[in-house]
Amino acid sequence: MIIFLKKGLPLSKEKEFRTFLAQRNVEVRPVEHEEQELLVVLGRCGELTRREIEKNASVEKTLDVDRPYRLASKSFRETPSVVSVKNGLKIGGKRIIIMAGPCSVETKEQIIETAKKVKDAGCQILRGGAFKPRTGPYDFQGLGKIGLHFLKEAGKRSGLAVITEILDVRDIELIDKYTDIFQVGTRNMQNYPLLRELGKVRKPVLLKRGMWATYKEFLLAAEYILLGGNKNVLLCERGIRTHVSETRFTLDLNIVPYLKHETHLPVIVDPSHGTGRANLVRAMSRAAIAAGADGLLIEAHVDPRKSLSDSDQAISIQELTKIVKEVQRVANAVDRS
Amino acid sequence: MIIFLKKGLPLSKEKEFRTFLAQRNVEVRPVEHEEQELLVVLGRCGELTRREIEKNASVEKTLDVDRPYRLASKSFRETPSVVSVKNGLKIGGKRIIIMAGPCSVETKEQIIETAKKVKDAGCQILRGGAFKPRTGPYDFQGLGKIGLHFLKEAGKRSGLAVITEILDVRDIELIDKYTDIFQVGTRNMQNYPLLRELGKVRKPVLLKRGMWATYKEFLLAAEYILLGGNKNVLLCERGIRTHVSETRFTLDLNIVPYLKHETHLPVIVDPSHGTGRANLVRAMSRAAIAAGADGLLIEAHVDPRKSLSDSDQAISIQELTKIVKEVQRVANAVDRS
Amino acid sequence: MIIFLKKGLPLSKEKEFRTFLAQRNVEVRPVEHEEQELLVVLGRCGELTRREIEKNASVEKTLDVDRPYRLASKSFRETPSVVSVKNGLKIGGKRIIIMAGPCSVETKEQIIETAKKVKDAGCQILRGGAFKPRTGPYDFQGLGKIGLHFLKEAGKRSGLAVITEILDVRDIELIDKYTDIFQVGTRNMQNYPLLRELGKVRKPVLLKRGMWATYKEFLLAAEYILLGGNKNVLLCERGIRTHVSETRFTLDLNIVPYLKHETHLPVIVDPSHGTGRANLVRAMSRAAIAAGADGLLIEAHVDPRKSLSDSDQAISIQELTKIVKEVQRVANAVDRS
Amino acid sequence: MIIFLKKGLPLSKEKEFRTFLAQRNVEVRPVEHEEQELLVVLGRCGELTRREIEKNASVEKTLDVDRPYRLASKSFRETPSVVSVKNGLKIGGKRIIIMAGPCSVETKEQIIETAKKVKDAGCQILRGGAFKPRTGPYDFQGLGKIGLHFLKEAGKRSGLAVITEILDVRDIELIDKYTDIFQVGTRNMQNYPLLRELGKVRKPVLLKRGMWATYKEFLLAAEYILLGGNKNVLLCERGIRTHVSETRFTLDLNIVPYLKHETHLPVIVDPSHGTGRANLVRAMSRAAIAAGADGLLIEAHVDPRKSLSDSDQAISIQELTKIVKEVQRVANAVDRS
Repeated sequence: MIIFLKKGLPLSKEKEFRTFLAQRNVEVRPVEHEEQELLVVLGRCGELTRREIEKNASVEKTLDVDRPYRLASKSFRETPSVVSVKNGLKIGGKRIIIMAGPCSVETKEQIIETAKKVKDAGCQILRGGAFKPRTGPYDFQGLGKIGLHFLKEAGKRSGLAVITEILDVRDIELIDKYTDIFQVGTRNMQNYPLLRELGKVRKPVLLKRGMWATYKEFLLAAEYILLGGNKNVLLCERGIRTHVSETRFTLDLNIVPYLKHETHLPVIVDPSHGTGRANLVRAMSRAAIAAGADGLLIEAHVDPRKSLSDSDQAISIQELTKIVKEVQRVANAVDRS
Repeated sequence: MIIFLKKGLPLSKEKEFRTFLAQRNVEVRPVEHEEQELLVVLGRCGELTRREIEKNASVEKTLDVDRPYRLASKSFRETPSVVSVKNGLKIGGKRIIIMAGPCSVETKEQIIETAKKVKDAGCQILRGGAFKPRTGPYDFQGLGKIGLHFLKEAGKRSGLAVITEILDVRDIELIDKYTDIFQVGTRNMQNYPLLRELGKVRKPVLLKRGMWATYKEFLLAAEYILLGGNKNVLLCERGIRTHVSETRFTLDLNIVPYLKHETHLPVIVDPSHGTGRANLVRAMSRAAIAAGADGLLIEAHVDPRKSLSDSDQAISIQELTKIVKEVQRVANAVDRS
Repeated sequence: MIIFLKKGLPLSKEKEFRTFLAQRNVEVRPVEHEEQELLVVLGRCGELTRREIEKNASVEKTLDVDRPYRLASKSFRETPSVVSVKNGLKIGGKRIIIMAGPCSVETKEQIIETAKKVKDAGCQILRGGAFKPRTGPYDFQGLGKIGLHFLKEAGKRSGLAVITEILDVRDIELIDKYTDIFQVGTRNMQNYPLLRELGKVRKPVLLKRGMWATYKEFLLAAEYILLGGNKNVLLCERGIRTHVSETRFTLDLNIVPYLKHETHLPVIVDPSHGTGRANLVRAMSRAAIAAGADGLLIEAHVDPRKSLSDSDQAISIQELTKIVKEVQRVANAVDRS
Repeated sequence: MIIFLKKGLPLSKEKEFRTFLAQRNVEVRPVEHEEQELLVVLGRCGELTRREIEKNASVEKTLDVDRPYRLASKSFRETPSVVSVKNGLKIGGKRIIIMAGPCSVETKEQIIETAKKVKDAGCQILRGGAFKPRTGPYDFQGLGKIGLHFLKEAGKRSGLAVITEILDVRDIELIDKYTDIFQVGTRNMQNYPLLRELGKVRKPVLLKRGMWATYKEFLLAAEYILLGGNKNVLLCERGIRTHVSETRFTLDLNIVPYLKHETHLPVIVDPSHGTGRANLVRAMSRAAIAAGADGLLIEAHVDPRKSLSDSDQAISIQELTKIVKEVQRVANAVDRS
């Protein structure tokens, strides 16, 4: 159950009400949601009935949620959330959004040239990693802070919004200065300290699904961020670990319509990691949009063979341009634009 | 390597040539392909070089294939195979084909009514199981022979072609009398005696991917049928076993563009088993076509709640009608019809 | 529920009772079990109560089973089943049984020499494939009937019982002449026609778990055989398909104690397929016995590098000898011998 | 390749040598190992040959390592590493070590009572979580700092060493004051900032395998810690995500002998998470030791049904006592104690 407190309720009244609940063994978690205070009830209502809670003078209304995730559920919000990025750019509306760019920011020239071409191809957001989570400690780990700087510059010059990955909870303040969207990678989907801190910022957070995660676990990870008061969460399917050896991961598009039934949050699909093969990215981009996704996250490189990381899955700008066009046609066929 | 024998080569000459090969330790498997005899070379060319083989008077040409599957590979045939069903109905061409119907044939009335509605919804083929592979021996196992009879009748009255599953290698002759397409279920993908026998018939065989199979294993299973001389093989993705608990299986659409790069055989997708949830079938039907599939296999029931098997995933005729329309729009967006 | 009919009940009485049940909508499956007729009730008791059934003059007793599998469950039989092979050799008792031999019977000399050495190493049963289920049609498919002949000869000379795989439901009569135990491979775990036919024989059947199967599906597959009246079923864990790439399969030893809680049937473990690497077989053989397995099925070859199939996982006779000794010590540590 | 610098090499000489390498495009990572400086060469030797490097006056010797992990590999160190905990307690020697205790520290009394009983049962190390990584934000998240305090007190009174999980890279200093071993949970196996920081401490780190990880990825995660100079890494198998629904995870014991062939690091097995079912823990504890594990990590509770987290898999102290005894016997059977 979720308790909506009356708008403008004085802090003293809220405190009093929470003491009252605590005395009746009703355990709650507070969350600020669109300038209103909510109390999420953990488990049962203690010694009180729902009616007794609703009658309380501090309460506007209550809401029953029959899912382990509350704020992420359709019961909490029926209409799709539309997440604002900047300059009027929105994710989750009728328009399909495409984020593209290299796995890693490699040089200033590379990222600035890429940004221009990604924009010309018809994309809205530039991706680029400065801190890279690499399987082995001897692999290229990203340019770090200077990479963030290059990325921001590329965004500014091209007019694109930018997204970059955060690995370390201690880097939030730093990265916040450079990015428009925080990306949480698959390996960090259940990095709870990181999720909690990202609940405190207000910029959008793109949360990638853990390659091992069930749908419920994915939504509960999003709930950690939402519970912190940050409602700008983007869910991103990026492939799961399966027995299939011919692709790097198995892109699980089933999750797209499932999430559309279960949550109001926008759904992004990453066909690059989800296949790990450049020659499958185009078809899976089309499929993702046909399945109902709100956007795509694609690894594209001005010279894929020279990519310092993930070169097997990076596509060329030429291929990206084709994808944008084909995706556009599929989007129209499913009443998107 | 594949050796194409000269067209019209006398049997005695062929025999002589094969003796010659055997003496040089070249092991081959013969296959009849579109009225021409081929010899598929196993492993290396023994003591001969490719040139020495090509120079032989019985040989038209040779073909190098760098895949473990030979006849299924793009190297063997570059252009897509188009499989003829009957009355001019073809699978693998520009037009998307939809096969729909109940999991099981339940009664004569049910299947005849269903056939009419499936046709009205815009589908081309009627599916219906008479012999059902059920996980438990106490579950409904299908009507058997009488079910086949009802199915054929429903096909005749509606003008739809029909497809039904074969479980038992001893039933080929029986089922051949009733069906237009043989369906091999996921559990039988590596039932080699069955595959070998289906290599001897000339009707189309829809081969479902084993829920555990890699792409290579799937194509090698198809190769068993092709090697028997039956070139009318339809590959069907129907979901794989993964850790995901919210869906019955994980529909692996990555395989669609992968197969389109690797093989000339038509690719069908079964979004009903691939999700196990009726409310995901529509979106995944659209996604399958957007990914490049040549057709769909959908479980639809005149009254889904009363379905004797797989009721969670069966959709209504009303929903099927919506799917056909939406799929049509997506098909157009990817230059299909 | 399972209904035990009175011993020696005349057929006419049984018929009468079954008509009575049918009229009250109680659906049953008959099975002969240790010279007694049982009726397994499908679903609910129709219009009757359990007491009304028990009071019937034809009924000895009834038994409630709260599992989808009935005859395989501990509720049906609490004490472990001991399966007799021949010459007093039993599986499922205190003594650990080891079955070893080559993946395929290759030549008469090979299998006869192997048999002698397998016996000397301390094993009780000789394995060897004559009909091989190979992933690709161009791989060595086994010697067929002549291989069965060699295997039987090797068994006779060494005094070992033999086990071989059956692939084709049409081969039961043939193989029955040569083998002491029928082996059903992982790919055929849900080959229901085959399971039904093996329910009609009385020789032991070693049923390998499908590499995709849940525990429930495995036990339901065994139930198909048991329901045919063949109570001599051996369950064999042989590894499942997972994302792990360093081993061929993931040996799931969790299933061993799980089965010991759920079923009375003996449990065999195949560490050769379950790892796919010769250098892991010894440790996993010890682990299987420590987990509670009743026996092992091991691929051993007189010259592993020359093995015509599965050469990566075949161990030498020398290694087999070590395994038998180490397994013996572990067996003693868990009160087995 | 790994370069061993001469012992006692002056810093100026080391600097000079590294400049020399850099000029020849040899990229290295330095690591201090048992009071000796090593340089791990990334990729190839640049413009130098191995001999040219070996001849350099600063170099003692070089070592070729043909694995992506270097310090974790057997090539680097052939003999098993023995990790010292405290008061002479060692992990990785002949003696099997058992760590047991509750999932979460719940109250002071609970953990002190548990510690006494865990010690009496014959275990050497007390486990207990103060910061819990919970799938949902509404679940009990652990007592935090006060829990650490209780745990340390329980360790002191019982004389047991203690192990607790670290979730947040910012908590290293805090937790270091209370624990004898840092535990990194499965969800953090690829939390690289955390691994890097744990490379700087000198206390043992028990690294749990990611439930999605391959063996290589697991060893590369360990390499991150080793490369920081902390050689006290314990590898812990705790079950992987598979399609099996009857157990919480699939304990992958194949990894135990695999790791014993690949690495010198001690291997611990967690049969509690690896099964998720209390009634399977005993058998899998025995199996783990038979497979070659150096120790066990077991969830035990003074009153399992009242456990605040993971109650399905917690065993009673009585069961723990049985396990210790049975494990002892198996240990003896495999020449351990």
